Amino acid sequence: MKNNNSKFKNENLIELEHGGGGLKSNELIDRITKILKIKSKWTNTGDDAAIFDLGEKKLVFTTDAFIVDPIFFPGGDIGKIAITGAINDLAVMGALPIGISLSLIIEEGFSENNLKKIIQSINKISRAANTPVVTGDTKVTEKGKIDKIEITTAGVGIAKKIIQNNGAQPGDCVIVSGDLGEHTVALLSKRFNYKTKIISDCQPLIKEIQSIAPFLTSAKDPTRGGAAAILNEMASKAKVKIILDENNLPFKKETIALSELLGIDKFSFPSEGRFIATVQRKFADKAVKKLKSFNKEAKIIGKIEKGKGVYLKTIIGGLKKIDTPRGKLITRIC
Amino acid sequence: MKNNNSKFKNENLIELEHGGGGLKSNELIDRITKILKIKSKWTNTGDDAAIFDLGEKKLVFTTDAFIVDPIFFPGGDIGKIAITGAINDLAVMGALPIGISLSLIIEEGFSENNLKKIIQSINKISRAANTPVVTGDTKVTEKGKIDKIEITTAGVGIAKKIIQNNGAQPGDCVIVSGDLGEHTVALLSKRFNYKTKIISDCQPLIKEIQSIAPFLTSAKDPTRGGAAAILNEMASKAKVKIILDENNLPFKKETIALSELLGIDKFSFPSEGRFIATVQRKFADKAVKKLKSFNKEAKIIGKIEKGKGVYLKTIIGGLKKIDTPRGKLITRIC
Repeated sequence: MKNNNSKFKNENLIELEHGGGGLKSNELIDRITKILKIKSKWTNTGDDAAIFDLGEKKLVFTTDAFIVDPIFFPGGDIGKIAITGAINDLAVMGALPIGISLSLIIEEGFSENNLKKIIQSINKISRAANTPVVTGDTKVTEKGKIDKIEITTAGVGIAKKIIQNNGAQPGDCVIVSGDLGEHTVALLSKRFNYKTKIISDCQPLIKEIQSIAPFLTSAKDPTRGGAAAILNEMASKAKVKIILDENNLPFKKETIALSELLGIDKFSFPSEGRFIATVQRKFADKAVKKLKSFNKEAKIIGKIEKGKGVYLKTIIGGLKKIDTPRGKLITRIC
Repeated sequence: MKNNNSKFKNENLIELEHGGGGLKSNELIDRITKILKIKSKWTNTGDDAAIFDLGEKKLVFTTDAFIVDPIFFPGGDIGKIAITGAINDLAVMGALPIGISLSLIIEEGFSENNLKKIIQSINKISRAANTPVVTGDTKVTEKGKIDKIEITTAGVGIAKKIIQNNGAQPGDCVIVSGDLGEHTVALLSKRFNYKTKIISDCQPLIKEIQSIAPFLTSAKDPTRGGAAAILNEMASKAKVKIILDENNLPFKKETIALSELLGIDKFSFPSEGRFIATVQRKFADKAVKKLKSFNKEAKIIGKIEKGKGVYLKTIIGGLKKIDTPRGKLITRIC
């Protein structure tokens, strides 16, 4: 199957699933990356960002596009998510973000008041994370040519030591900085008009990651494709097996209920302010303790073994495979 | 008037002109920038890119969104224009681009074959300009939620010495790297299905600018808003008057004819592979000679005097003011 999907085919059309963060996304990105490959001093191991050697330090560079629906949701808006996304892509690599670029495409007729709210929301995160927005672009399209507003951010950061996504070792613990999928629950509650106390988890992760960076063997934030996508990526790149423990699920009851209602695996729900990391067993408790000072739901959720794939060890002792998401998906969450 | 437009107003709606590169664009960007301002180590004088001091060298960072219609046109496509735009924003600052980020938003149902062509076109410029695409993002929206494909690029570059846009001095000459507005003529010929031999001027400008960088007192590429926008910006920032000479207009006959047909000032036509610079009188001939080795239409088009504003000295000796574009404009050129 991989073979069939490794080339562009003339008759094929782009599908929503190509943008969902799962298997088809990965295949499309592989096809694009293959064409774009030229000799370069940068390294990019399929991480959230690329790395350029500046001598003693490293420059880290990332980008993300945001086409969120609705643009305002409990706990955030498209502006908050756009700056936070760039900051977190740098932070999970161990970098300190130094500057963000902000590119806006706005639909003709969009309310200036809503634009102002979005920009203020970006500024709030920019101040909190001490990361300035330093350059930008603003385009306007004819009414009906886009849906309200789209934001693409890019970010540059400086790192002394890179945390990569392929460093997990057998014996390591898998830790999480808080409950997952709350961004998905909050955003869908607005879209489908149901009541919940859950608000988006969208937040910068610089302090959390920096506080435990020396302990981490790998880290990644479960945005598109959720934990299912990134755990499979971490397992595959490190050539290890990941076993999660159903007794320590990183989900609130409401998140699980929504997952069952929609018939969509909760492990594929995107978060926008959480990270999953692997850490040597001997440092795991210390790392979790540090993380708990930011979010009391930080915890150990599993372990690394020899082998391959991602599994959930169920309460009754079975092993359930967690696959990279494919098929049915929720669009425009992040 | 400036006063009325310096704040967001609740009842106002975004108009196409807010994205056109003229007066209303500048006012909107001012309002956004004012909200986003925080203490920062970066400098951005309203140039095409922001500057971060790395010690002996400077890091330069830029972004641009591209919503071009049609996406394929004589001499290029949205991919070519997207990577070239980022490269040139760095190049006109005197920087050597080191890496580009590529963010795609694709409409469901878009042809994979056309996507492949666009990516190949990006790769062609990437190779020619020796500037790798190092990181990216790919999103897909539901059919009808965007128009085919949108591309946002960001770029990082390294500069030893920055060429800024405020350095013009009375006595300097104004030079241009080739005829202007050909990108506009080519793109509109496809949109409105008329015949022309003119193809888009879209091309990277690294070599051209580097070859004469030591002579330049300021430089800028006339993209959105065309020469009219950037000459007014250069004059205003340097607090000087610019006088162009109608005997040395940087336009082909067909460009002038299209301008008259549309009733839109040719000086507001965007180019995507040209720059305008100011240079000390004594170096002007040498600089133009160098530029002519790349494009024989490079020439001196005017001079800097004390005063303010941008004027065209007509063949019969009058002075015609060239204003920052406002009002009627051509959308989605670049």
